[in-house]
Amino acid sequence: MSEVIEMLIRRGFLWQSFEIYGGMAGFIDYGPLGNGLRRKLENLWREYFVVNERAVEIDTPTIGVEDIYIASGHATSFTDVAIECKKCGRVYRADHYIKEKLGIEADETVESVKEIIDSFGLKCECEGEFYEPKPLNLMFKTKIGPGRGKKGYLRPETAQGIFIAFKRIADYFRGCLPFGVAQIGRAYRNEISPRQGVIRLREFNQAELEFFVHPDERSHPGFSIYANDRVKLVDKNGREHNLTLKEAIEKRIIPNQILAYFMGKTRRFLIKAGIDDAKLRFRQHRDDERAHYASDCWDAEALTSYGWIEIVGIADRGDYDLCRHSKYSGEDLSVFVPFKEPVRVKRRKIFPKMNKIGPVFRQRAKRISELLSSVEAPLDVEYVELEIDGETLRVDREFFDIREVEEEIHGEKVFPHVIEPSFGLDRITFAVLEHSFDRDIIEGEERRVLRLKRCIAPVQVAVLPLLSKKNFEEKAREITVMLKNAGIFTEYDDSGSIGRRYRRFDEIGTPFCVTVDHQTLEDNTVTIRDRDTTRQIRIELTALVPALNELLATEKDISEFGVIFKE
Amino acid sequence: MSEVIEMLIRRGFLWQSFEIYGGMAGFIDYGPLGNGLRRKLENLWREYFVVNERAVEIDTPTIGVEDIYIASGHATSFTDVAIECKKCGRVYRADHYIKEKLGIEADETVESVKEIIDSFGLKCECEGEFYEPKPLNLMFKTKIGPGRGKKGYLRPETAQGIFIAFKRIADYFRGCLPFGVAQIGRAYRNEISPRQGVIRLREFNQAELEFFVHPDERSHPGFSIYANDRVKLVDKNGREHNLTLKEAIEKRIIPNQILAYFMGKTRRFLIKAGIDDAKLRFRQHRDDERAHYASDCWDAEALTSYGWIEIVGIADRGDYDLCRHSKYSGEDLSVFVPFKEPVRVKRRKIFPKMNKIGPVFRQRAKRISELLSSVEAPLDVEYVELEIDGETLRVDREFFDIREVEEEIHGEKVFPHVIEPSFGLDRITFAVLEHSFDRDIIEGEERRVLRLKRCIAPVQVAVLPLLSKKNFEEKAREITVMLKNAGIFTEYDDSGSIGRRYRRFDEIGTPFCVTVDHQTLEDNTVTIRDRDTTRQIRIELTALVPALNELLATEKDISEFGVIFKE
Repeated sequence: MSEVIEMLIRRGFLWQSFEIYGGMAGFIDYGPLGNGLRRKLENLWREYFVVNERAVEIDTPTIGVEDIYIASGHATSFTDVAIECKKCGRVYRADHYIKEKLGIEADETVESVKEIIDSFGLKCECEGEFYEPKPLNLMFKTKIGPGRGKKGYLRPETAQGIFIAFKRIADYFRGCLPFGVAQIGRAYRNEISPRQGVIRLREFNQAELEFFVHPDERSHPGFSIYANDRVKLVDKNGREHNLTLKEAIEKRIIPNQILAYFMGKTRRFLIKAGIDDAKLRFRQHRDDERAHYASDCWDAEALTSYGWIEIVGIADRGDYDLCRHSKYSGEDLSVFVPFKEPVRVKRRKIFPKMNKIGPVFRQRAKRISELLSSVEAPLDVEYVELEIDGETLRVDREFFDIREVEEEIHGEKVFPHVIEPSFGLDRITFAVLEHSFDRDIIEGEERRVLRLKRCIAPVQVAVLPLLSKKNFEEKAREITVMLKNAGIFTEYDDSGSIGRRYRRFDEIGTPFCVTVDHQTLEDNTVTIRDRDTTRQIRIELTALVPALNELLATEKDISEFGVIFKE
Repeated sequence: MSEVIEMLIRRGFLWQSFEIYGGMAGFIDYGPLGNGLRRKLENLWREYFVVNERAVEIDTPTIGVEDIYIASGHATSFTDVAIECKKCGRVYRADHYIKEKLGIEADETVESVKEIIDSFGLKCECEGEFYEPKPLNLMFKTKIGPGRGKKGYLRPETAQGIFIAFKRIADYFRGCLPFGVAQIGRAYRNEISPRQGVIRLREFNQAELEFFVHPDERSHPGFSIYANDRVKLVDKNGREHNLTLKEAIEKRIIPNQILAYFMGKTRRFLIKAGIDDAKLRFRQHRDDERAHYASDCWDAEALTSYGWIEIVGIADRGDYDLCRHSKYSGEDLSVFVPFKEPVRVKRRKIFPKMNKIGPVFRQRAKRISELLSSVEAPLDVEYVELEIDGETLRVDREFFDIREVEEEIHGEKVFPHVIEPSFGLDRITFAVLEHSFDRDIIEGEERRVLRLKRCIAPVQVAVLPLLSKKNFEEKAREITVMLKNAGIFTEYDDSGSIGRRYRRFDEIGTPFCVTVDHQTLEDNTVTIRDRDTTRQIRIELTALVPALNELLATEKDISEFGVIFKE
């Protein structure tokens, strides 16, 4: 176990779930500090991707009926290739096992896996042979309702809840593109044999934004904000680049502005959250790697003790999802986009002859006439075939006229395209923790310090009485309440020497310690200690809340708020 | 459909899930406004029940391994009695069906249901007869891992995730009671045939606090805060009372201070969130109604269009959960509570005679000696029975001495007791919306207005250009950005007449509208309109953010911030 993970468990950031029942791979608990950190990341994400976009957030169930996932393609395509041992019965995810044992990147297909197993004679760890490899669906299954019930799945991504509610949301925006719809919540992936601790979870937390745009639109007015941001890129052919986003578009490495806009925004968000820019890159999916719904995808990857891991995926899903759900549900999920100016067009239209249709088709005459009127007739036709009650009916030319008419067209129906930045909050939390973990020498002693950004530290301020005396403690408790009431995440601690307490709060990343000492009781001043430099200032109690609020919202140095009296 | 629900769907608060696939009872989507409202309720809850308690929040998986729910009792006791029609196959929840058809409150037991069906000759709606009633477990089932996998359940309450992680959390608090552990998240209940729209959900949102106290402790230092709050009570015998919490304790209607403390705090929270105190009561569970883990339980109930519905349950769970999980997992979930002063006690202890044990018991001698030493020996005994490897072994008096010794005892191990306030966030959201819905007459026209508390309104401020002219709109957009950056939930709207826009924001409960008019462009002032009174003031743009921040954080009248120019 790495030193960071040992610390995270010991200090209550996270630990394995169900420990007292022997645990289960792929599940973690967020303890008090991990939960605080992840909730703050979520709020920061909302600020970037909801409040500052033309976007809203919705919240839909984690259980979904089967129809959704047949339409979305997950019922057939959300699979990993698995290999099962004939002897011990153990099941592995094929590509991971092959990578581990042979160091080869296998394609995620049954054929590729079979070929590798056969040619290398790959066996189980118990020396048993494997059955034929087969694809396993990764959705958790359940039943809704009593008895045999109705099939349900736990969602593999929050996105589907957005697509199937698209009509409602488009109404909310009165149909005006572009708009974004976000969701933050649980998603599930019944991994075959997850062995990578905190980064390969069966139950995880996503923050997804589905950004709906006109199909012809791939420019973005906000792109200029990030145009000159320099990013590390690995394109789909594995070539590395170090370019500004503007250059990457000019060189056609990134295909359009919207993708580049969200890559730029994602990078700024991640840096703000505490990801080290030097350990961040964007990698384009290879052609054989993309999910079934994506026409292009760029992953933000962070370098961690597990190597480069995907922490964000930014995919161009095109109109795949809305078209599929339209087709499978029978509901029209297109939107009507008005033209700037109405267009006058000449069209050839069919005009039913009711006097002919009536006598021949009787009760069906009305329906036939309606259907005929809706048929496009670009050229002369001899007859028209109509679908009525599942039956194909031939209607000959004698029953209708074709005439050219001029019409005013006010707009068109389109299926919006979707650009999707999808964030894995658990992995981001973990990467932030790893990138923040540091050690230095303070007063000749080594110290462990978590250099979390002030805005996301789970405990922002610790209030410490210098001595365990009643009047020190009472004052410190008063200050704690004052800070809590001001909305600052504050903890009170009176146990152990002051040095030990400082170290304790350094280790969990608390940016500032406020100490009540002898002088506090005389003149109502306290000290503020900065985690990173361990320098201290003294400040009037009345100035404490505004000073801390400003320090926490910015990256200002404490020296701006008082004279450093201790380096 | 009620007028409120029609409005909630139309305006994007909530709607049925999976609508395009025909929907499914027991699932709802939160639209942009509903999500905003519920998230704000969650944050308000955190402020009351985490930040202002000695409490932390954790986040554990929604999927749990079977062991947990065998130990917790849910695998056997979390059931409803179901009746299935022999003819049409439909399954009903027995007590609901009996109530609906016969107006009788059936006990939730198979026997009671059977008796009623037999004596009334109750049949299905299709006139078919029922099979024998039987209990159905209400947990959603799933499998974890590939192949046959391992049995898992979706959690029926967030609480179990807290109990099974108790050791970790107790460490975080260094074992010092009392402390609280909260969790906010999804829980699941596979209802048999939910027919009450938004209030009987199969997937719902809970906010639970497990407050761990010393088993002998039922007083609470914070009780005095709420002692004189007057509450409506219905005791377990159905008698109604209108008393202060202090009187309710004196009359032994509420058995202890901790329960009363949380009832008082719950009431204040609910009122702050917008529940009408006149439509709020606390009802004690009848002896035959309590959950399998509870020794006492008081529900907060709100009067809604569905009648009185439970929105909060405040249960005394005693040491049920920690003891059960200790027993089933083999992990000791007790805590060591130090005495204020060490106590010197005389105890009779067993001292193994190794020279006798060794020759007779050989390899098992060491284990026997250890076990003997841990046995209490209050009186003389002839022999001791030990459990070794599942076998009971009799060890006679010749193998040990009993001597009295004096020991210093520093504390004791105890299983903490749990008081649990458990909040149903969906029902609270719905009750708040119903209690806030109002209509009045403004300028001779009826208006619908949602009188949401300012602190929880999903859209807090609307910024409206009076005219659809470029300079009005630009100014209004600038102001929107300014307010968003100040952390105020703001929406911009330029579509339709100003009167219609005011009505639109009244209907979704937006407390304040800021309007950009001709004068704005001349002197940088805007108007603020108050939703409830429709009165308006004019204010300098530079004073807008502080004024709105204060208005939103308090219940102050706008007249404190400017001269009313329009009544």
